Amino acid sequence: MENLLSHIHNVEDLRKLSVNELPQLCNELRHFIIEQTAEHPGHLGSSLGVVELTVAIHYVFDTPNDKLIWDVGHQAYCHKILTGRKEQFCTNRCYNGISGFPHRGESEFDAFGTGHSSTSVSAALGMAVAAKMEGNMTRSHIAVIGDGAIGGGMAFEAMNQAPYRDVNMLIILNDNKISIDKSTGAMSKYLLSITTSPAYNRLKNRLWNAFTFRTNHPNRVTNFFSKMGNSVKGWLFGGSNWFQSLGYRYFGPADGHDVVNLVKTLQAMKKLPSLKLLHVLTVKGKGLEAAEQNQTQYHAPGKFDPDTGQIIRAEEKQQPPKYQDVFGNTILELAREDEKVVGITPAMATGCSLTIMDNVFPERVFDVGIAEQHAVTFSAGLATEGYVPFCNIYSSFLQRGYDQVIHDVALQKLPVIFCIDRAGLVGEDGATHQGSFDLAFLRCIPDLIIASPYNEHELRNLMVTAYHNAKNQGLPFVIRYPRGRGVLVDWHNEPQILPIGKGRLLREGQKVLILTIGPLGNNVQKVLDQLKAEGITPAHFDVRYLKPLDESALEQYLDDYPVWITVEDGTEKGGLFSEIAEFIDRRDAMSGNATTRPHLMHIALPDRFITHGDIPHLYKEVGFDEESMEKVVREAWQLAVSS
Amino acid sequence: MENLLSHIHNVEDLRKLSVNELPQLCNELRHFIIEQTAEHPGHLGSSLGVVELTVAIHYVFDTPNDKLIWDVGHQAYCHKILTGRKEQFCTNRCYNGISGFPHRGESEFDAFGTGHSSTSVSAALGMAVAAKMEGNMTRSHIAVIGDGAIGGGMAFEAMNQAPYRDVNMLIILNDNKISIDKSTGAMSKYLLSITTSPAYNRLKNRLWNAFTFRTNHPNRVTNFFSKMGNSVKGWLFGGSNWFQSLGYRYFGPADGHDVVNLVKTLQAMKKLPSLKLLHVLTVKGKGLEAAEQNQTQYHAPGKFDPDTGQIIRAEEKQQPPKYQDVFGNTILELAREDEKVVGITPAMATGCSLTIMDNVFPERVFDVGIAEQHAVTFSAGLATEGYVPFCNIYSSFLQRGYDQVIHDVALQKLPVIFCIDRAGLVGEDGATHQGSFDLAFLRCIPDLIIASPYNEHELRNLMVTAYHNAKNQGLPFVIRYPRGRGVLVDWHNEPQILPIGKGRLLREGQKVLILTIGPLGNNVQKVLDQLKAEGITPAHFDVRYLKPLDESALEQYLDDYPVWITVEDGTEKGGLFSEIAEFIDRRDAMSGNATTRPHLMHIALPDRFITHGDIPHLYKEVGFDEESMEKVVREAWQLAVSS
Repeated sequence: MENLLSHIHNVEDLRKLSVNELPQLCNELRHFIIEQTAEHPGHLGSSLGVVELTVAIHYVFDTPNDKLIWDVGHQAYCHKILTGRKEQFCTNRCYNGISGFPHRGESEFDAFGTGHSSTSVSAALGMAVAAKMEGNMTRSHIAVIGDGAIGGGMAFEAMNQAPYRDVNMLIILNDNKISIDKSTGAMSKYLLSITTSPAYNRLKNRLWNAFTFRTNHPNRVTNFFSKMGNSVKGWLFGGSNWFQSLGYRYFGPADGHDVVNLVKTLQAMKKLPSLKLLHVLTVKGKGLEAAEQNQTQYHAPGKFDPDTGQIIRAEEKQQPPKYQDVFGNTILELAREDEKVVGITPAMATGCSLTIMDNVFPERVFDVGIAEQHAVTFSAGLATEGYVPFCNIYSSFLQRGYDQVIHDVALQKLPVIFCIDRAGLVGEDGATHQGSFDLAFLRCIPDLIIASPYNEHELRNLMVTAYHNAKNQGLPFVIRYPRGRGVLVDWHNEPQILPIGKGRLLREGQKVLILTIGPLGNNVQKVLDQLKAEGITPAHFDVRYLKPLDESALEQYLDDYPVWITVEDGTEKGGLFSEIAEFIDRRDAMSGNATTRPHLMHIALPDRFITHGDIPHLYKEVGFDEESMEKVVREAWQLAVSS
Repeated sequence: MENLLSHIHNVEDLRKLSVNELPQLCNELRHFIIEQTAEHPGHLGSSLGVVELTVAIHYVFDTPNDKLIWDVGHQAYCHKILTGRKEQFCTNRCYNGISGFPHRGESEFDAFGTGHSSTSVSAALGMAVAAKMEGNMTRSHIAVIGDGAIGGGMAFEAMNQAPYRDVNMLIILNDNKISIDKSTGAMSKYLLSITTSPAYNRLKNRLWNAFTFRTNHPNRVTNFFSKMGNSVKGWLFGGSNWFQSLGYRYFGPADGHDVVNLVKTLQAMKKLPSLKLLHVLTVKGKGLEAAEQNQTQYHAPGKFDPDTGQIIRAEEKQQPPKYQDVFGNTILELAREDEKVVGITPAMATGCSLTIMDNVFPERVFDVGIAEQHAVTFSAGLATEGYVPFCNIYSSFLQRGYDQVIHDVALQKLPVIFCIDRAGLVGEDGATHQGSFDLAFLRCIPDLIIASPYNEHELRNLMVTAYHNAKNQGLPFVIRYPRGRGVLVDWHNEPQILPIGKGRLLREGQKVLILTIGPLGNNVQKVLDQLKAEGITPAHFDVRYLKPLDESALEQYLDDYPVWITVEDGTEKGGLFSEIAEFIDRRDAMSGNATTRPHLMHIALPDRFITHGDIPHLYKEVGFDEESMEKVVREAWQLAVSS
């Protein structure tokens, strides 16, 4: 059989195929994705699940004139391949390669950049309203959103507004019963009930066929449905009332792997210039048996054998653990000792290793789904009752729960413990996922304790410190740490309670004082080891706490070190650099010109969005590599010598 | 008739009354609230609407052991009066008086502090889960949430999770068809359809009575409902499926002003130790005719005549306008000239005066309801299509849309114009509503332009500048300004396009350079007028833009002014003070010890939550009054002279 994909370079080529050729194309696309992703790791499972849906959408709709928005966007591989990026797909998620998510700068087919969840309906509604204001009710606006993402509050806000505006918009609910971990919540349960209701299944074929057979007579379709009163529809369709009660024309569920039927369905729906929702059932990981069986593991499996699906593991012996696993094991230890310890995560139980506690104490672990706002305030509610909530959220996703940290936790001084995972650069996921801003946006919140561990032992120490602080009704406590491996093979120390707001001198030295927060301090140590040979011997202080700052220690250093350097894996605007700059100026102003003011240099993320790529490339770009750091330290030394 | 309220000092006293006495008590409470609020302005309408509901809840439930959470909390006046704060109620919202919102520090009856919308279900669920883990399924957890607040995404996140946990929780949906402005969205329309459906109304009395007559036999009630299959219930109750499809036992709608029936209903529901929702219909402003007729105006009417309801207006002749009205009139002028200009607000159309444009171009004004996240990304969607969205959000509510500003707007460089209202101190609404943090949390976001106007003319100039910037596909643009009146009676200038990132020297001077952003600069001018007599003559520079900073102007000043002072009505952690401190250190480090480094002092909000009260008191507390500012300037002058 002739290979079809080799002739498909863009959507125009796709649209030249006959409908009957599409199943073959889908198979080829699926194998292409599997082979590429096996070698160049990425989000496998979601993309395999929507091959047929992607083909059908681009076959039926006039993209890029019609607007297509992929919610979250990690499922857009097939979309990228069909829209002119097949040749570049081997650079997916690489430094200088194409992004792993839709990106407006990359293609006109990427109508809206995504990465975080639940944004697609808002964005599509904005575009649809714009078209309507132009008097254009024929342009289509399509938001493809998963059953996990639709539980995010933002999606509901948009779905609540859309029926209020009379627009041409199609929401495709991609229902695979899983986000990364299994979907939780009433909405998921409800969607399951739709698809398993006997009443529904008895009736759906007749109705569905009545609908799809009339594709050339859109008015008759419309009339058919509009003639049915709401209550009758509700009775016929069982649970589909959730959408109908909000004013959506609900269609489905449709088999998301039957591309021919999807094409027919979409062709019919395209002719309804109104608001409608198509519920599509797909299987995450479809076409790779291992991925279908282990959907969470194959969400982003890393390298694997494209034939068997077997994941290729690097030799792990004697490697330091992931910070995530240190978190997971340490919270389990605390949970064993105190039944008031609970764990909360918004849909990241596997990613943050809260699964380690979940396996032992499932009743005290709360995966609340993609719902960061709720996760924070739910934790606050638990804290009012004497529980010790460890609320684990990725740095860039905490941006979603920001008001709740301020309004529900800090303002009420509730001792919630935030474990901020994926702080600093995350690498291949790129700009949407870099944890660049948390130090800055948290530092301005009163009554927060903010810390970051130098290594695994310190993470354990800080978790135990935060735990004891919470038991004593202390202030809310933030512990931020990066994605990936730590630095200690022998990570399992006996954790110590640390004094709050106290740093530690890691290395004595002269002239230059380097202030670090978090694991980047280890890189600084390597740099200082190197520079020793040149006679450059700065001191190194691990501030440990961004807030409260160890002012009494730093005051002692004001006279001794004429040059200070701050080092942090966060933005240069508002984090440690700012805190130290303010500290020096505050002290100076208070003492009326008497103090010595050190010069202050900094190593931090520049004030721009940081692209995707592997960490070594990114570190070089932002000046976190050893060479760049050495250069700054040498300059500081020079300045100190001449001061 | 004997006065009942005079004998009610706490909930114990309330519970001694017979059910038949409650209607009279409600009348007395209502008059008490009207009389007090007429003299001491506050949130009138919402509190009048829930008098009967509040009495019924405290009568039936064992507060404070049972947990009661008022969503938003501005409707909690009756709650405060019944829970030991009747005598203090005359200090409501005053400096050192009681808070206008529930506050954990104020009373054990305030189970969770509120102020922002849509948090109650999350908090109540946290408490209910805590009780369940203790094996306590008899304690009740009650969240009272309005039909506006339930459209907020956060509330949906929590409502989506609650049925997944088997808890004893009662959600009371207080449905008055209005938040501050008329509720918008599909949810509101749906709730209306429930209450007006003829099918529903035919059946509800029989069913409802069947329910309420069995208050002493909860099991029979439970059985009655559980015996009805879901589809049958859906048919009988019409639209009530929205809640039922999510797994809620739905009861209602009940007349929210029939206190006797509410007591019976709640007594019955209390005995169901599970998740349930009671839909209550209330009238905002109930009992004061003027407030019932003009619900938006009487949301927080200021002083009024307690008998007629007539609002008492201060003499307005020759007063400067509110910044809000300058915004409203200026966007209308822009909208008249360019049909691409659109206005977006999350439920604050009246408060931000977007109503001025709405009256003329309703089809280009989008009040999206309490949905800050959606408001931001919807604006981003409009911007992709060449529209010029002015998205108006209060500073403290923008905390809800923070991720969207980063991820959907700034990262994609979409030229959305954010008009951040209520920036700086807002006064009587207190800590939950102070706009303290926006300068800090926005400054760390790359590719944002951030400005604040010195006065009304500058607000108009900045709006026109932002408009032209957007038309030229410039970066997203933030304009932040405070609540209330400006400083210019003759505000209506011919607006000028300003250069982006350029400040202006407002006053020449010596030795000390004062850098201000926003209208607080006017207060500085007064201080400098005063100090002139003492021979203290600093220069005054209005930076105008926090980002990008006018570095070329400031560089010229480095040598001339040995002391600088920053002045901003935002937190001292991360705003203008930080920006200038960083600027001085950056310049210093770049030039290798050659430059003169000015000493840097600052006037800003202290790093703590700022309480409620009138602005003069608050200004004194935070050091924004003239006396405090003079003191800082004198110190700076002293330091400069001795440098």
